[in-house]
Amino acid sequence: MDPNSYANNSTYQRGVVDAAKELLSKAIAEKLDIDILLSSNSFQIADLGCSVGPNTFFAVENIVEAAKFKFQSQGQDSQVPEFQVFFNDHTPNDFNMLFKSLPQNRRYFAVGVPGSFYGRIFPNASMHFVHSSYAIQWLSSVPKVVVDKTSPAWNKGRIHYLNSPEEVARAYEAQYTEDMECFLHARAQEIVYGGLMVLTIPGHPNGSSHSHSSINMSFQLLGSALMDLARKGGVSEEKVDSFNIPMYCMSPQELEAAVERNGSFSIESMENLPHVSVDDTVSKSQLFAAHMRAGMEGLVKQTFGEEILDELFDLFGKKLEEPPFIFETGKTINFLCVLRRKGNGFEHAV
Amino acid sequence: MDPNSYANNSTYQRGVVDAAKELLSKAIAEKLDIDILLSSNSFQIADLGCSVGPNTFFAVENIVEAAKFKFQSQGQDSQVPEFQVFFNDHTPNDFNMLFKSLPQNRRYFAVGVPGSFYGRIFPNASMHFVHSSYAIQWLSSVPKVVVDKTSPAWNKGRIHYLNSPEEVARAYEAQYTEDMECFLHARAQEIVYGGLMVLTIPGHPNGSSHSHSSINMSFQLLGSALMDLARKGGVSEEKVDSFNIPMYCMSPQELEAAVERNGSFSIESMENLPHVSVDDTVSKSQLFAAHMRAGMEGLVKQTFGEEILDELFDLFGKKLEEPPFIFETGKTINFLCVLRRKGNGFEHAV
Repeated sequence: MDPNSYANNSTYQRGVVDAAKELLSKAIAEKLDIDILLSSNSFQIADLGCSVGPNTFFAVENIVEAAKFKFQSQGQDSQVPEFQVFFNDHTPNDFNMLFKSLPQNRRYFAVGVPGSFYGRIFPNASMHFVHSSYAIQWLSSVPKVVVDKTSPAWNKGRIHYLNSPEEVARAYEAQYTEDMECFLHARAQEIVYGGLMVLTIPGHPNGSSHSHSSINMSFQLLGSALMDLARKGGVSEEKVDSFNIPMYCMSPQELEAAVERNGSFSIESMENLPHVSVDDTVSKSQLFAAHMRAGMEGLVKQTFGEEILDELFDLFGKKLEEPPFIFETGKTINFLCVLRRKGNGFEHAV
Repeated sequence: MDPNSYANNSTYQRGVVDAAKELLSKAIAEKLDIDILLSSNSFQIADLGCSVGPNTFFAVENIVEAAKFKFQSQGQDSQVPEFQVFFNDHTPNDFNMLFKSLPQNRRYFAVGVPGSFYGRIFPNASMHFVHSSYAIQWLSSVPKVVVDKTSPAWNKGRIHYLNSPEEVARAYEAQYTEDMECFLHARAQEIVYGGLMVLTIPGHPNGSSHSHSSINMSFQLLGSALMDLARKGGVSEEKVDSFNIPMYCMSPQELEAAVERNGSFSIESMENLPHVSVDDTVSKSQLFAAHMRAGMEGLVKQTFGEEILDELFDLFGKKLEEPPFIFETGKTINFLCVLRRKGNGFEHAV
């Protein structure tokens, strides 16, 4: 297996799944209304942006466990429904690998669903519980104007919106707003009245500026590493100009605003996850660089080819060790938001 | 793309899909009861043994089209449900390829379902229409006794049951009986009362002997080609002894008997498909050899390695051109069986 693969370098995301576990179980215990299973024989769960595992399996196992417990404590054992889990990611995801690594002892029927979660992927009112961890920070695409040479939002020499002209950040924000509208609109159709959606999102704290987000800072460093390579002739500067990372670092308030604009969901809770501590046998920056590579190399490869990866992420790792240290000055949070599909008397918390 | 791949060598199976089209549409027009959509918002279709496409897409498109027409002609346009299609095949199937080739303009939500259709793959009462074409002739596995050196059913020097000791054919038959029991038992739980299952199966005519089946004859030739290679030292004879093709060529009567033993389905129709004519710009035996290779090379490769494939299927092609010609003496039929899940007053044809 590729030592740089996501499956081997997602311990941080695993840490997030673990940190979210307690909140997720609590949300199910307190907020899941078993009456939502009105007309269906099975309890249908979706994980959006599941990647290839194994993190998605831990999350799903946790959800099934907590939901079973809720059914057992409120009904009779015989009323525990069958579970069907829909693993979703975009079509180029390696579903073959996902399917081969499905847990042998799973207590649910598993299916894979290819397609962007910014559009409809499920029939009307077919989902009882939708989960997504570390996925909706990805935009549906890079905002068009930031790669348009004639636009004031052209993002020359950078790959993200930090330290860019204000038009660039505004273009990213507009894309986020549009994407989130599509996301919530699609889910509002797919989730049954009273159904829950739990989102875990890396973002920046309310009230802090984009420029203090350590995610944004790290993309700035990666962009600067790419520009160093361009200056040495390792990559074409034009390609760097055309390359932008379609990720938006939102605050809890921004998500709240989007949910309110959409109008179909009530916010049942919004909490920051405890800080995720990671294995400290390797240096923080090495680990961070490895995670960055696991998350980004697919994207980087598409534009720049495989051959630059080692040099680029080495350079990136070195930049992480130069002041100002983003681990000290940067701010990032992981927050978990529990939403309920309104309608049919399910407007209020149970 | 691999010129020997299934996707490029399934024109015969495509011909079967086309030949089945009319019968399938007729079955839906005459037998589909739209009241089966009692408690569900969407019409759920499964294709079992879908492979990687494109044949599965033609079949599914045909089913969706005919079902829409039925809903429109019996209800109002606004009552046409959304469609969700579950593409199933065993876990090693290339679902990535399947997902990448999904029709852009499809009018259904698509999901992939990994797992053997001899076990449960869907929740209780969740399927309205199950389709399977050219798949259930595959057994769940080779009968154990035929690779057991101490058993009278040991199938030394052959790869299928034709011209084998009677014990071999009996072991295959027993495996078929057990598998079909599992298949029908699982589907009986998964299909809603009144739901339909349409199976297209290559088999042999009622009353004819296994030894006249051209499918069985062709496996005998393939086995004999393998033994020729073994004699020349190209493959080990022990490997040939251990290699058997897990396929059973059933008659319509055998299927009827299995359905009756199971008891959960009524047989709504059982018809032979019209003869499939294939492109005659290449010789019949060349085409047949190419199809055989497309269908079998995965299995052959697992035991004998990739390197024997060209020689083996060349040899097989030559054997096809020697008398007795299996195209003249062999019998094969493709038959289509329409089953209805009994229960809740849906016992009888609509």
